[in-house]
Amino acid sequence: MKSYAIGIDLGGTTIKAGSVDAGGGIIKTVTMDSLAMSGPQAVIGQLLKTINDLMAQHAGETCTGVGIGAPGVVTGGSVVKNPPNFAAWERVDLGDAIRREISLKVEVENDANMAAVGESKFGAGKDHPNFLFVIWGTGVGGGIIIDRKIFYGSHGGAGEIGHLSIDMNGPRCNCGSRGCIESYIGQRYLSERTRNALAAASADSHTSGIIALVNGDVQKIDPKIIAQAAESGDPLAKAIFVEAGTFLGYALASILNILDIRVVVIGGGVSASPQFVYDAVTVATRERVLKPHKEGIRILRAELANKAGIIGAASLVM
Amino acid sequence: MKSYAIGIDLGGTTIKAGSVDAGGGIIKTVTMDSLAMSGPQAVIGQLLKTINDLMAQHAGETCTGVGIGAPGVVTGGSVVKNPPNFAAWERVDLGDAIRREISLKVEVENDANMAAVGESKFGAGKDHPNFLFVIWGTGVGGGIIIDRKIFYGSHGGAGEIGHLSIDMNGPRCNCGSRGCIESYIGQRYLSERTRNALAAASADSHTSGIIALVNGDVQKIDPKIIAQAAESGDPLAKAIFVEAGTFLGYALASILNILDIRVVVIGGGVSASPQFVYDAVTVATRERVLKPHKEGIRILRAELANKAGIIGAASLVM
Repeated sequence: MKSYAIGIDLGGTTIKAGSVDAGGGIIKTVTMDSLAMSGPQAVIGQLLKTINDLMAQHAGETCTGVGIGAPGVVTGGSVVKNPPNFAAWERVDLGDAIRREISLKVEVENDANMAAVGESKFGAGKDHPNFLFVIWGTGVGGGIIIDRKIFYGSHGGAGEIGHLSIDMNGPRCNCGSRGCIESYIGQRYLSERTRNALAAASADSHTSGIIALVNGDVQKIDPKIIAQAAESGDPLAKAIFVEAGTFLGYALASILNILDIRVVVIGGGVSASPQFVYDAVTVATRERVLKPHKEGIRILRAELANKAGIIGAASLVM
Repeated sequence: MKSYAIGIDLGGTTIKAGSVDAGGGIIKTVTMDSLAMSGPQAVIGQLLKTINDLMAQHAGETCTGVGIGAPGVVTGGSVVKNPPNFAAWERVDLGDAIRREISLKVEVENDANMAAVGESKFGAGKDHPNFLFVIWGTGVGGGIIIDRKIFYGSHGGAGEIGHLSIDMNGPRCNCGSRGCIESYIGQRYLSERTRNALAAASADSHTSGIIALVNGDVQKIDPKIIAQAAESGDPLAKAIFVEAGTFLGYALASILNILDIRVVVIGGGVSASPQFVYDAVTVATRERVLKPHKEGIRILRAELANKAGIIGAASLVM
């Protein structure tokens, strides 16, 4: 009998779910707006509906289980604590709530770890038993894979690499610390840096292709636009990205020294950026990391892109 | 029949060895100058002599094995690579060399990890299954204990916390990077910072108790002297230590965010410093670490002091 696993990427904006085959291929998908602001019961209802929808499309086949990736800290493969952008949600045993309604194996995991597992099983980490997974998007997060398994630390939250400070006197970060790498290269900060650089350049009476791409509305600037401008040769856009990649490389050098890991897989929204960004990350990491690590440093582009959530989630119950 | 384990702390200057009982108590010790600059064969000869000396003092008892702590990277519980301050020593299978001569269990481990294991079994880490061990001495090193076991990373060298950068534009470190925490608070740097501060203060016609303690010879300034001056109320000495503790706390916040560990045990030469240094480390770590971690943060003084090497080494074969 054919079998499949269900993987669900639970986000504050969207719930993306899919059935996945043993080779990591997505068979069917279901997507819906997330009722994150309506409280846990509404979200649990959505998850159950999603699971039933997918199972109905696989009548007569065996479902090996349901994997769910959730934001926030997840403990014991089941309990989701304080996910950002979810209302009235302090501590919810999501795994238990689902298991009570359907008699399947259910595993819940932090979304960054989930994506890391997906890259480990089916993506850029396939050939690397140990790697650091970086999500570079709105914020900067990560997951640590050791011996093909998630490294949890002592309380389940290991991998918060966005809050490694690269300058103790640097800009104030949302978390309260200073100089966190996220406060330099997170999507919002990167867009802000670009607006500031454009303002300074226009004072010098330089112009940039970025302005044309957003029809003069600098509030529309985001990493995608900057990448687009950089790829068509805009020097300011390119400089912004090279600087961001260099800062990330500096942070990675510190992290890799502590973990003694040599391979980094970068995913998240910004990971679609041009190759020269990866080159900048690689150069900066190699420049700053301890000598015995230098040669082995590999900075890889995540391969599963926006499918990482579904495939990673499903792979936990395969 | 009574039993004991042998623990050896192999250093570039001194070899300290001892027999250790099941409760972590040192029974007999042997100490000799290390022939580190005379090549591996000379050192192996010394280790064998040390082991035989100790065994002769325990005639009729059972030796459970020999644990050896060595500088440099140690892999597979046996091979010692490029230990600093050892001549003609690229890659030596020390465990194998000893096992060939004596029919006992032999385990070799990196010295920082060894001390961490000692603190875990018999010292400040006894009640903490997960903690970061920091050696604050000539340099800054460390070991990561997860579930009471050493966390090795992918190549056996995890825990090099001295080369976490706290300022990407900071002073050049010996390792080639910039702003490494070691380049602010390692023994040599700390002494240098103190000399510079004294020079600046004397230009302001201030004086410091430190000068009296070294009879005017500022080259004699070391962390022990600074601690002594601080304890007798010297403001400059105190300020130097508070600053160093604060920098260490900033580094720890980044590290604890990544590893999701809450407990830190500080050992090494500088760990004998006054309580206010630990307070400064604690305040700075709590100030900068992610919110969910803040309350659980514990910065503890190592308990085994200069016995950590022998006890830690022995505990690997107990």
